[in-house]
Amino acid sequence: MKVLITSVPFGNIDSLPLEILESAGADFTINPLNKKLSEDELADLIGEYEIVIAGTEPYSKKVLEKASNLKMISRMGIGLDGVDLNEAKKRGIRVSYTPDAPAPSIAELTLGFIITLLRSVHQSNIEMHKGIWQRYIGRTIDETSIGFIGVGRIGAKVIEMLSAFGDPKLLVNDISPNHELTKKYNLEWVDKEKIYRESDLISLHVPLTSKTKNMISRDQLLMMKSDASLINTCRGGIINEDDLYDVMKFGHLNGAAIDVFENEPYAGKLIELDNCLLTPHMGSMSNKCRSLMEIESTKEAVRYIKGETLKGEVPEIEYDIQKMF
Amino acid sequence: MKVLITSVPFGNIDSLPLEILESAGADFTINPLNKKLSEDELADLIGEYEIVIAGTEPYSKKVLEKASNLKMISRMGIGLDGVDLNEAKKRGIRVSYTPDAPAPSIAELTLGFIITLLRSVHQSNIEMHKGIWQRYIGRTIDETSIGFIGVGRIGAKVIEMLSAFGDPKLLVNDISPNHELTKKYNLEWVDKEKIYRESDLISLHVPLTSKTKNMISRDQLLMMKSDASLINTCRGGIINEDDLYDVMKFGHLNGAAIDVFENEPYAGKLIELDNCLLTPHMGSMSNKCRSLMEIESTKEAVRYIKGETLKGEVPEIEYDIQKMF
Repeated sequence: MKVLITSVPFGNIDSLPLEILESAGADFTINPLNKKLSEDELADLIGEYEIVIAGTEPYSKKVLEKASNLKMISRMGIGLDGVDLNEAKKRGIRVSYTPDAPAPSIAELTLGFIITLLRSVHQSNIEMHKGIWQRYIGRTIDETSIGFIGVGRIGAKVIEMLSAFGDPKLLVNDISPNHELTKKYNLEWVDKEKIYRESDLISLHVPLTSKTKNMISRDQLLMMKSDASLINTCRGGIINEDDLYDVMKFGHLNGAAIDVFENEPYAGKLIELDNCLLTPHMGSMSNKCRSLMEIESTKEAVRYIKGETLKGEVPEIEYDIQKMF
Repeated sequence: MKVLITSVPFGNIDSLPLEILESAGADFTINPLNKKLSEDELADLIGEYEIVIAGTEPYSKKVLEKASNLKMISRMGIGLDGVDLNEAKKRGIRVSYTPDAPAPSIAELTLGFIITLLRSVHQSNIEMHKGIWQRYIGRTIDETSIGFIGVGRIGAKVIEMLSAFGDPKLLVNDISPNHELTKKYNLEWVDKEKIYRESDLISLHVPLTSKTKNMISRDQLLMMKSDASLINTCRGGIINEDDLYDVMKFGHLNGAAIDVFENEPYAGKLIELDNCLLTPHMGSMSNKCRSLMEIESTKEAVRYIKGETLKGEVPEIEYDIQKMF
């Protein structure tokens, strides 16, 4: 079977995924453009392949129309916004993913962002590098009200990590609340507006859907405390980047930490703001996480090749969510 | 009694310390220069005061010779390198401190530095602000060998926080090992050279003494792995800043995070290095920590004024350490 691997670098940290493919007799190609593929680039490439080990590039209707031999998409990571699931199903293309692999790595980066924002480390660092010695009095986690929108695998993991730092006030929201966590971590389930109005720091952990697209726009930003901080390590497009720039330029918010962008690589105006911490979609960029995602997605592809039962197939609820929103 | 408060800002977050002083009838003055005092500035000011509520400025022999009315130094925070304890004792000046107050705040900043360095967040942020999209594959805490030199109040607190992030390999060193922690956190007590050679990240939590001064110089830096990271949130002078600059400029080390400097405000060459995270001595700069240090040091001063038993007097071992080193 002909396999295309789009996510690069691949097999660098650990060559095991390449060995697995070889011993399964797969005829595989690693992304010849060595970068995240655009819709057009992917449409041009995909025709001859039966399996894709996929990154975040778009599997839209337009791409799938060109994918006449495609039988299976094995997606590295958790986000499914790049895959038109119902269009894939119509064409008999099966879709698997590795939703558990990236959680610890993304959660840990988020926790680093929380401390960085609460203590203005990013801003101090930029100022120190300009020769400015300006001390900021910040907050410890224990004295902070932290709001979570989205308490799934990753949000819950961040909350678990936070519990090592005392007893912050946790305001949380999710479309399907996990009440098992409520008592353990002293969670207060509230509506999103209460999170916007009362949190000192807000962290987003939701998928990108038509319902969460631009969820945080001017109105929501202006509801936030003037010294609040905002973190997005989930998906670009959920915060309206122009609105975020406008309110922060005006002096609203203490800071923001943004790892994901509507268009990547990011080339927007937020780079003008010293109190906006920016990183290039690095949530899952740890050796262990990358390697786990590569191995899991490869094993799943090989299961398909061998006609075995798939272990990471995307559940029906994700298809329904895409239909609804 | 005439009280000088040198550490500024003071009483801003919470006015309680000022109220405590007023109701004790103390005649107090807040640092008229509104900045960290130099040895000369302190020597000029100190003559008329009986009590100082002190920051990190130097209570050297030269200063204490001018302090003809001084009866008590109530030091905010944990570091005693600024106070010549045995010279103070000779002159009958009692010295108290608040060693527990800053630990959570310093430990939390250190933990933020650990994640930031392991994921190259500081470097990415500088690059993103220059329009460069360059992703780094880092490590999660769980896949890292972390070395601690100094496992006292603060080192132990960082280790406790780390335990929420999995099971990193912990190599630790202290002049008086706390074996109660060994099993709980799976610590491996080793000599410093093993820490230099085998750690992916090293964090320093020792006091500044003549023995720790320049403890990390060229030889120690060159023993470290070429992709290791180094954190100093304890005291400036423990890492030789010129040597650190030289080896990092040459490409050695993945990164460093430095919050404390031999001379503050810092005006050295480390600002040239994008992979060196710099902050202006902000370990204790959280609302809760500052407020706790101000209240505790003020209450101790008032205990002295009222002739009550002191609760935070510096123990004899600290005098011995200063004699030895």
